[in-house]
Amino acid sequence: MQRFFLTIEYDGKPYVGWQRQDNGPSIQGEIEKALAKLGETDKLVYGAGRTDAGVHALAQVAHVDLDRQWSELKLREAINAMLRPQPIAILAVHKVDPDTHARFSATGRHYLYRIINRRPFLALDKGMAWHVKTPLDEIAMNEAARHLVGYHDFTTFRSVHCQSKSALKTLDELLVTRQGDVVEIRASARSFLHNQVRSLAGTLKRVGEGALQPEDVLTALQARDRAACPPVAPPEGLYLVKVDYPRSLNL
Amino acid sequence: MQRFFLTIEYDGKPYVGWQRQDNGPSIQGEIEKALAKLGETDKLVYGAGRTDAGVHALAQVAHVDLDRQWSELKLREAINAMLRPQPIAILAVHKVDPDTHARFSATGRHYLYRIINRRPFLALDKGMAWHVKTPLDEIAMNEAARHLVGYHDFTTFRSVHCQSKSALKTLDELLVTRQGDVVEIRASARSFLHNQVRSLAGTLKRVGEGALQPEDVLTALQARDRAACPPVAPPEGLYLVKVDYPRSLNL
Repeated sequence: MQRFFLTIEYDGKPYVGWQRQDNGPSIQGEIEKALAKLGETDKLVYGAGRTDAGVHALAQVAHVDLDRQWSELKLREAINAMLRPQPIAILAVHKVDPDTHARFSATGRHYLYRIINRRPFLALDKGMAWHVKTPLDEIAMNEAARHLVGYHDFTTFRSVHCQSKSALKTLDELLVTRQGDVVEIRASARSFLHNQVRSLAGTLKRVGEGALQPEDVLTALQARDRAACPPVAPPEGLYLVKVDYPRSLNL
Repeated sequence: MQRFFLTIEYDGKPYVGWQRQDNGPSIQGEIEKALAKLGETDKLVYGAGRTDAGVHALAQVAHVDLDRQWSELKLREAINAMLRPQPIAILAVHKVDPDTHARFSATGRHYLYRIINRRPFLALDKGMAWHVKTPLDEIAMNEAARHLVGYHDFTTFRSVHCQSKSALKTLDELLVTRQGDVVEIRASARSFLHNQVRSLAGTLKRVGEGALQPEDVLTALQARDRAACPPVAPPEGLYLVKVDYPRSLNL
């Protein structure tokens, strides 16, 4: 048995999400099917994070234990050949020790939330960004974001379905920038609660359009009440950008 | 009669190109159909440049003469409503004098050619970039590019179908940069010959993979012979980024 780390790019549009579910194809399920076609049957692929339906990844990370002693390059090419023409690509494969875990060994996660802020609809970025027509004040959004960085109880900003034991998390970065019509929110933390980034993005959007003042997000945070959260941002703007692991793993 | 300038974003994938043709839907044709639905029948939309099938635009410019006195905003919203859900969006509408011409008044055109340089196939950018698997040396590509900037006879780098009277053109900029897997070629000129940017991109790719030396592009240029041109780069990597007009037009 050999454990492998997979770095994975995907377009979330055609999937029910990362995780295997009964109601349609998942990224996890499609990779497991590709492995089965290679003779590695009934292998479980564990992801570093569970992305929802419609959420994209530039570099999701997952691990899987395989029977054969694949070379890293050969395994990558073989899975990709089986996945085609689906919009899932294995970018890299690394052999790791059997105690290295894609989810539990991760030391950081980086997400990007993309908004395209203009009246006309999206010809090039349909399904790849949140189309917001109301003009957004990114300076106010960034001011609000600064109130949320740090160690807090994020109960307001997590899904009621979140399975995490504690809502206490440290948000290391929450940054809002604009270039032309594109407003980008970058969020980094050791780990996130379910729907946390989309809850934060939805809240910042309300600040951007002037429905909330930057200080109002502090009130919402301190309420520790899901009901205090503005509407969650849609999945199509969210990208899992990178997962960090300890340097000693040499990934 | 009032002349309008339209700034247009489109995904070139589903179209036979900018120009109306018998063999399928074109961007020009779809905009003309949208105008007809608004009661502006048989109006001709003139583009600043004719993009080929599969080529994208971030901001193509076109002009059209209409019967009604539309407000700029209302016309934009109305055309967009008729175009939906096609991947063509009118980003801006400007009233101009009747002697202002989208093609002939243009003083500059800016193109981007996007290459994604990696082995694994493209999950997120399928049809939106050229997928080149051979490692590319972008430094060599940029050195080659510098030989091509300036006033030259570009016969080698134009399609045999090119209708331009002269192959003498000034290439103002040809720049190659890399960020991670993405190699970008930026080309600017007052005007381009048919297939010129894709011919240049195809040539630079051959330099990048070491099949040609940077100086070889000078030999190819000086040959003034289409047969000296390496294979033309595919359309999916090409984007019309911007068209310049004189400042006096206040666009």
